Amino acid sequence: MANPKVAGPEIERLIQLLAKIPGLGPRSARRAALHLIKKKDQLLVPLAEAMGIAVDKIGVCSTCGTVDTSDPCAICTDPRRDQTMLVVVEDVADLWALERAAALNVRYHVLGGTLSPLDGIGPEELNIASLVERLQDGEVQEVILAINATVEGQTTAHFLTDQLASLNIKITRLAHGVPVGGELDYLDEGTLSQALKARTQF
Amino acid sequence: MANPKVAGPEIERLIQLLAKIPGLGPRSARRAALHLIKKKDQLLVPLAEAMGIAVDKIGVCSTCGTVDTSDPCAICTDPRRDQTMLVVVEDVADLWALERAAALNVRYHVLGGTLSPLDGIGPEELNIASLVERLQDGEVQEVILAINATVEGQTTAHFLTDQLASLNIKITRLAHGVPVGGELDYLDEGTLSQALKARTQF
Repeated sequence: MANPKVAGPEIERLIQLLAKIPGLGPRSARRAALHLIKKKDQLLVPLAEAMGIAVDKIGVCSTCGTVDTSDPCAICTDPRRDQTMLVVVEDVADLWALERAAALNVRYHVLGGTLSPLDGIGPEELNIASLVERLQDGEVQEVILAINATVEGQTTAHFLTDQLASLNIKITRLAHGVPVGGELDYLDEGTLSQALKARTQF
Repeated sequence: MANPKVAGPEIERLIQLLAKIPGLGPRSARRAALHLIKKKDQLLVPLAEAMGIAVDKIGVCSTCGTVDTSDPCAICTDPRRDQTMLVVVEDVADLWALERAAALNVRYHVLGGTLSPLDGIGPEELNIASLVERLQDGEVQEVILAINATVEGQTTAHFLTDQLASLNIKITRLAHGVPVGGELDYLDEGTLSQALKARTQF
């Protein structure tokens, strides 16, 4: 910018920090900062408060790896959840997506990523040791690998299957198939092929 | 959402507030919240601080209507700026855009919008009275209307021209023409027609 101090260093700093939020770039961060300043009482004040509370209260659950205001988190301590199933996900966002679907009342384990040797992410960088540790007491009878259907995700799933093989626990993965509401014409061949192979009685 | 309290009310509130920022929707607000929580020390803490400072310090300049940490703002009090020209803009964002272009070292007047009778925005809702007031002392010799080239913007420009007619001040507007770097093939007929009419000696 030709004249970076157009509106004082405080506003420039706010814009620079907002630009680091995924989904906002330098231009939309300026627009966001202006909107926040204009809607001071309705938006800026409550958002600053909510962020302050998040700074003070939110941490990572030492059991499953999700983020919450308590440790262990509300999901890990919920007695109504099925203790015999454990869903393994890559990321907290995936855990949230499964919870929104509300298909299963189970507990989770967040890996924190996928194996990626080129990026220096090996088994030690993921929450794999803590997963094996959690499964030692024999309470969990089924581990559902809800890992993304990407190359890295599937590599990680295979690695986990090897690691858990000695524990004599049933290991399952999400079904491949046609998305609900999806049109066949727009689907890739891999998905269609898997959906045909896994066809069910109508 | 089927299970809104998946991650505690504090995180849900943060997501709801982030979703009100222009450029972020409900889905990207969740992603933003997760990113902020994960980058707590690098991003969430400094952003919460910057917002707190913005809440405490940033206000509207009572002279020109822009936002700044001082009133009158740094631009209005800058003695090196040309006191004989005043640039009228719709919004603070437009002022920032002109300052980034750094084409003129002048002062500004922010209208706060455009006339829009259907939305109930008449002359009283805009900073027009304060503009007329500012021009009374005769120091300003040229008013540049840097108002958007929309129907509402041009209506507002005509209204302002009528209001300022009795003051005997030169009123100018931004030139229409081909954007720098623009290709003729992609330009609308109105712009091309104006660019031809206002052609200059090569």
